[in-house]
Amino acid sequence: MKILVINAGSSSLKYQLIDMETEKMLCKGNCERIGMETGRFGVKTFDGRHFQDLKTPIANHKAAFQKVTEILVHPEYGVIKSLSEISAIGHRVAQGGDLFKTSVLITDEVKKGIESLIPLAPLHNRPELDAINACQEVFGNELPMIAVFDTSFHSTMPPKAYIYPIPWEYYEKYKIRRYGFHGTSHRYVAHHVSHLMHQPVEDLKIISCHIGNGSSITAIANGKVVDTSMGLTPLDGFMMGTRSGALDPSVVTYIMKRDNLTPDQMDDILNRKSGVLGVSGYADDREVTDAEIKGEPRAVLSHQLMFYQIAKYIGAYAAAMNGVDVITFTAGLGENQPELRYDACRYLRFLGVKIDAVVNDETIHGKEGKVSTFDSQIPVYVINTNEELMIARDTRAIVDKLKYAKTEDKTIVDPEDI
Amino acid sequence: MKILVINAGSSSLKYQLIDMETEKMLCKGNCERIGMETGRFGVKTFDGRHFQDLKTPIANHKAAFQKVTEILVHPEYGVIKSLSEISAIGHRVAQGGDLFKTSVLITDEVKKGIESLIPLAPLHNRPELDAINACQEVFGNELPMIAVFDTSFHSTMPPKAYIYPIPWEYYEKYKIRRYGFHGTSHRYVAHHVSHLMHQPVEDLKIISCHIGNGSSITAIANGKVVDTSMGLTPLDGFMMGTRSGALDPSVVTYIMKRDNLTPDQMDDILNRKSGVLGVSGYADDREVTDAEIKGEPRAVLSHQLMFYQIAKYIGAYAAAMNGVDVITFTAGLGENQPELRYDACRYLRFLGVKIDAVVNDETIHGKEGKVSTFDSQIPVYVINTNEELMIARDTRAIVDKLKYAKTEDKTIVDPEDI
Repeated sequence: MKILVINAGSSSLKYQLIDMETEKMLCKGNCERIGMETGRFGVKTFDGRHFQDLKTPIANHKAAFQKVTEILVHPEYGVIKSLSEISAIGHRVAQGGDLFKTSVLITDEVKKGIESLIPLAPLHNRPELDAINACQEVFGNELPMIAVFDTSFHSTMPPKAYIYPIPWEYYEKYKIRRYGFHGTSHRYVAHHVSHLMHQPVEDLKIISCHIGNGSSITAIANGKVVDTSMGLTPLDGFMMGTRSGALDPSVVTYIMKRDNLTPDQMDDILNRKSGVLGVSGYADDREVTDAEIKGEPRAVLSHQLMFYQIAKYIGAYAAAMNGVDVITFTAGLGENQPELRYDACRYLRFLGVKIDAVVNDETIHGKEGKVSTFDSQIPVYVINTNEELMIARDTRAIVDKLKYAKTEDKTIVDPEDI
Repeated sequence: MKILVINAGSSSLKYQLIDMETEKMLCKGNCERIGMETGRFGVKTFDGRHFQDLKTPIANHKAAFQKVTEILVHPEYGVIKSLSEISAIGHRVAQGGDLFKTSVLITDEVKKGIESLIPLAPLHNRPELDAINACQEVFGNELPMIAVFDTSFHSTMPPKAYIYPIPWEYYEKYKIRRYGFHGTSHRYVAHHVSHLMHQPVEDLKIISCHIGNGSSITAIANGKVVDTSMGLTPLDGFMMGTRSGALDPSVVTYIMKRDNLTPDQMDDILNRKSGVLGVSGYADDREVTDAEIKGEPRAVLSHQLMFYQIAKYIGAYAAAMNGVDVITFTAGLGENQPELRYDACRYLRFLGVKIDAVVNDETIHGKEGKVSTFDSQIPVYVINTNEELMIARDTRAIVDKLKYAKTEDKTIVDPEDI
C-alpha cells in the first residue's frame, strides 16, 4: 500500500509518497512560491534521483498537484507507474479545535468543520482546506483522503492544563483555550522512544522537546498528553526563532499604547520579529551561532535565554506529571544542536540527568539514540521526528477500517433470516 | 528608635509604628476611601485598643496623614506622647525600575526618579509619590524618609531571567523587562526561613511562594534572586485572584480584535476580571471555597488550576537553580489555605517533598513553621510575611548610616593639621 502525505501552506506544498509495507519514503518533494511569478519545484527519490525546477510558474494549489502527479509517474524521475498505485492521501491540518480529537476520513462535513476553525488558525486552516479541495479536483473524489490534525494528540489534556484563567465567556463564546500544536511529531516521538527503550508507552512519563523554528514541549504520561507549551496559537510557550512565547500580557498592551499599534501589527511583531531574532538581531540560527562564537553579548544571551526557558519547561512538566522517565529532543535544533541539549540539561542535574558530551556531540545530522550517560537517572534521547510517517500510518489505519467495514457490510446476515 | 512605615495606594493609606528595640508593632492603622464622600479610618494598638470611624471625610493624602498624627499621640488611642519620638519614616514604593537597586534616603532627586518610573507603574508610583509629598508636608522635611522598593530585591536577576524575547529596542527604548514585585516580602521570608533552619541564607536555594490576592514565586539562591514570576507588571506569572498571569499573547490580540477592545479595556479585563474570578465566577476566595465544597465544576477547576500552576512554577524554579533546599509559603492564601499547600506539593513527590497533613492543617491564622514530614527530602515552611518590619529595618539601617556619616564628618581631622 502506498500513501501520499500532503503538508500545505499558503504558498507551499510539501509531499511524500510512502510505501507502507516497508514504511520507507519513495520520494519527497516541495512546491514553493505558489501563486508568485516564478515558483520552485524540487523532488528527491529514495534512490537518489533529484529533479529541480527553480523558475516554473505554479498558479495555485491545483497546478501544484498537477505537477506532483506528473512527476510521480515521470519516466525518469517517477517512482510509480500509475497513480492508481496510491491507496490514499493523508493531509496535515493544523487546527482541529475541539471538533477533531482523532484523525478522520475527509467528508463534506469534515471540510465544513475545518472551515469553521479558520478564525482560530487563519494562516493554516485556510490554505490547508484549499489544498484538500485542489487535491480532490486532481485525484478525484473516490480516493480516500484523511485529515490528521496537529492538535488532536493534545485532546487528552485535562482542563487544568487547557483552560486559560480569563473570563469564562471567552472559552464558551470564542473557544479560547490551549490546543497545542506539533501533536503528530510529539506522538511519533513518544511511540518511537518507547520502542527504543523497550518499554510500553503506557508505562512512561515522557517530556518531548520539539525544538525547531517553531518549538513546543509536551508532557506525555501513559501515552496521553498531560500538558503542552503551545496554546491557542503556536505563539504560546517559550522563545522560538522569531516568536516570543508566552508573555506578561501587559507587555503586549504597553507596547501597543506607546507605539499606537493595532492588534494585527502587534501579532506580527511577536510572531516574526521576536524570539532569537528579537534578542540577537539575527534571523538565521547559523548567524546567531557565528555571532555567539565572536562573543556578541546579545547573540550569547539569545541562546542562554532559550536554553534556560527549555530547562524551566522541563522542570515544570516534571511537576505536572509528578516525575519524568525520559526526556527527548527532536526537530531542526533538537536533532542538530548538541549545545542546546547539553546546556538545557545542565539545569537538570538535581534530577540526576547527565549528558554524555561525546555521544551528544556526535548525535547530529540524522543520527538518533540515547545521549545521556549510562548512570543518568533519567535517560535523554535524540529522536528524528517523522510526522509524514505518522500521518501515513493514521491514513492507513483508517483506510483499513473502511475496507473492513465494507467487507463486514457484505457479509452481514440478518439474524431473522437464519 | 521608633519608625513609621507607610504603604499608600491611590485611595488608601496603611501604616504601622514599629519599636525597633523589640521589632514589635506599636500600632497599625488604615485610611480607606480617601477622596470619596465618606472615608474610613481604623487603628489597632499593640495592647488591644481599637479605634474606628467609618464615616469620616478624608479629602486627600495630606488629610489622611493629619488623622494619623492626631491618633498617634491621642490620649486614649495613642502609643506615643510626641511625634518627635518618631525617628524616621519608611515608604513602600512599588516600582524602582533599574534606578533603585537598594532602599534609599528620599531626596528631591529620588522623587524625580520615582516620578520618571510612573509610566511603568501608573497605579502605584503616582499615589506613592503623592503620599511621600503629603507626608513631608505634615511631618516636615527634617525627618529622614526612606523609600523601599518592591522591585529592588529582584535586581540581582541575570539577563536570561529578566529579558523578554521581543525586539531589543523595547528594552532600550521603553525599559521593558522583568522587574518583579513583592521583593520586600520575599526578602523577609528568605532571611526568616534561614533563621528558622539555622542555616545561613547564603547556603540555601529557596523557592518562596507569596500567594495572596496578588501572587508571585521567587527563586533565591545564596540570598540573591535568580528569577521571579511577576514581570514588567504584577500581571505576569501565574493565575491570581483576578489576574490572568502570563498568556499566549495571541489570546490578548484575538479578544481585542473580536470584541474591538482598546489596550486599556483589555488590561482591565486581565487585571480585574480574570484569574480565580474569571474561571469560577466568584470574587471572594471564601465564596470560591463554598462553591467548591458544593461541587461546582468551575469553582473546583479554578483552585485546581491555581495549585497546578504553582506546582509548575516550583518545578521550573528548581530547574532554574539546579535544585531547591526549601520551599516556603506566605501571604494571605499561602499562610491560611492548607489545601493550597497540600495540593500544590502533591505534584512534588518526585522531589521527595512530603507534607505532614495534620501539622499543615493546624498551621493557619498566624502560626508558622515547618509543615513537611520529618523525612521530607525538601522541607516546606509556612512563614508569616512582614513587609512592614523589613521596611522598618531598611529605614533604621539607612538612618544609622546617616548618623554615623554625620559623626564621622565632625571628627574628621585634616591630615595636614597633624
